[in-house]
Amino acid sequence: MSLATQEKDFSRYDRKLEFILRTAARIFAEKGYHSTSMRDISRATEVSLAGLYHYCRSKQELLFLIQDNCFGRVLERLQERLRQTSGPVARLRLFIENHLSFFAANMAEMKVLSHEADSLEGEMNALVSAKKQHYTRLARQLVGDALAEKSAHSSGRPVDLTVATYALFGMMNWIYNWYDPRGKLSVAELVENITRLFLTGLLGAAEHESPSFATATGTEPLSVWRAPKSDLLNP
Amino acid sequence: MSLATQEKDFSRYDRKLEFILRTAARIFAEKGYHSTSMRDISRATEVSLAGLYHYCRSKQELLFLIQDNCFGRVLERLQERLRQTSGPVARLRLFIENHLSFFAANMAEMKVLSHEADSLEGEMNALVSAKKQHYTRLARQLVGDALAEKSAHSSGRPVDLTVATYALFGMMNWIYNWYDPRGKLSVAELVENITRLFLTGLLGAAEHESPSFATATGTEPLSVWRAPKSDLLNP
Repeated sequence: MSLATQEKDFSRYDRKLEFILRTAARIFAEKGYHSTSMRDISRATEVSLAGLYHYCRSKQELLFLIQDNCFGRVLERLQERLRQTSGPVARLRLFIENHLSFFAANMAEMKVLSHEADSLEGEMNALVSAKKQHYTRLARQLVGDALAEKSAHSSGRPVDLTVATYALFGMMNWIYNWYDPRGKLSVAELVENITRLFLTGLLGAAEHESPSFATATGTEPLSVWRAPKSDLLNP
Repeated sequence: MSLATQEKDFSRYDRKLEFILRTAARIFAEKGYHSTSMRDISRATEVSLAGLYHYCRSKQELLFLIQDNCFGRVLERLQERLRQTSGPVARLRLFIENHLSFFAANMAEMKVLSHEADSLEGEMNALVSAKKQHYTRLARQLVGDALAEKSAHSSGRPVDLTVATYALFGMMNWIYNWYDPRGKLSVAELVENITRLFLTGLLGAAEHESPSFATATGTEPLSVWRAPKSDLLNP
């Protein structure tokens, strides 16, 4: 789908819904999902309670849409970029860059994904869990492929695949506790340092020295929500 | 203070309090602090509400005691062990082993420390934050010392100290999302893999190959709460 078509399809209704989701994510991240009421979200969005229920059936559905959107978008973007990239190490680099640049632009959503993983129930939980599992399996595959290539060229004892995969997620996902995207460390520098630390740890010193991943991060809007905020402050 | 003195000082009152704290930590980890009531804790501990208020003034104080105990104990244990260890890499290894073995034995508490970091207010928040900052500064110092030693012996570009420190905390603290201490990967193997991954990433391939940290983990009871559970099920 071309960008022009996307823009056309992205109606006023969708923009408003995304504004509500973005705001809800911020409040869930600040107060916790269970401590937040629809009234809090109404107040922050300046959308009436009745208006909110025009966009979602419940607070639970808001949480679902936030989580589903995040895992959906980060996975979709990754798969699209992986299609154009070959070589296990290059593909693993791409995964790290994709995950970090996406979540550095969506830190509130990242905290909500982490803290409210168990807050969804029933079918909504099942749908999000399936996407998350798909994403985790893909990550494990990429780490495993890089490890296999290393084993073919060296005799060192490889790191356990499960530990390596979750250590990578831990290094990346922990950023919501300390990283400020507007601070002195740019997203590109964050990506470069985490990539170097992890790839050197996984593969040894030789293969990491000249990082060559794309640094197109600065030009592309990576917020999970498409509508610019200013557009909706005065609807 | 000798072990004998500790045991004598550790009265029936203390044992009961620790049982309450351990149980409260488990429930906060499962349901979240804000969604848990004192009645939930009363039900799980089989201690009456009036009885609970004999041990703590409020639910807030329970959360404070859990957090304060965790940061206090892990820091105290680290400082004691660091006194007997020299050499930047050995000291950093010790830090990783100390942190992981402690929190692998206290996973519910670890989740509470992470998810409820902002749930304490006023002075209780200030006291816990001070301990946490002390612990984080010490970690940063240990990572920095190891990096400095590396720089003295090699010309490779070092990883950013802040990124390295928080990446290490991320790798370690994320375990509450995936690791099962009763599963097939032992705590010693977890420690060995994370240590190798991080130290290789930080220092390059040469310095990590023969891990020589103490593996006394198996013999020492590392639960933050001293009283064995069975002791209190039938008080």
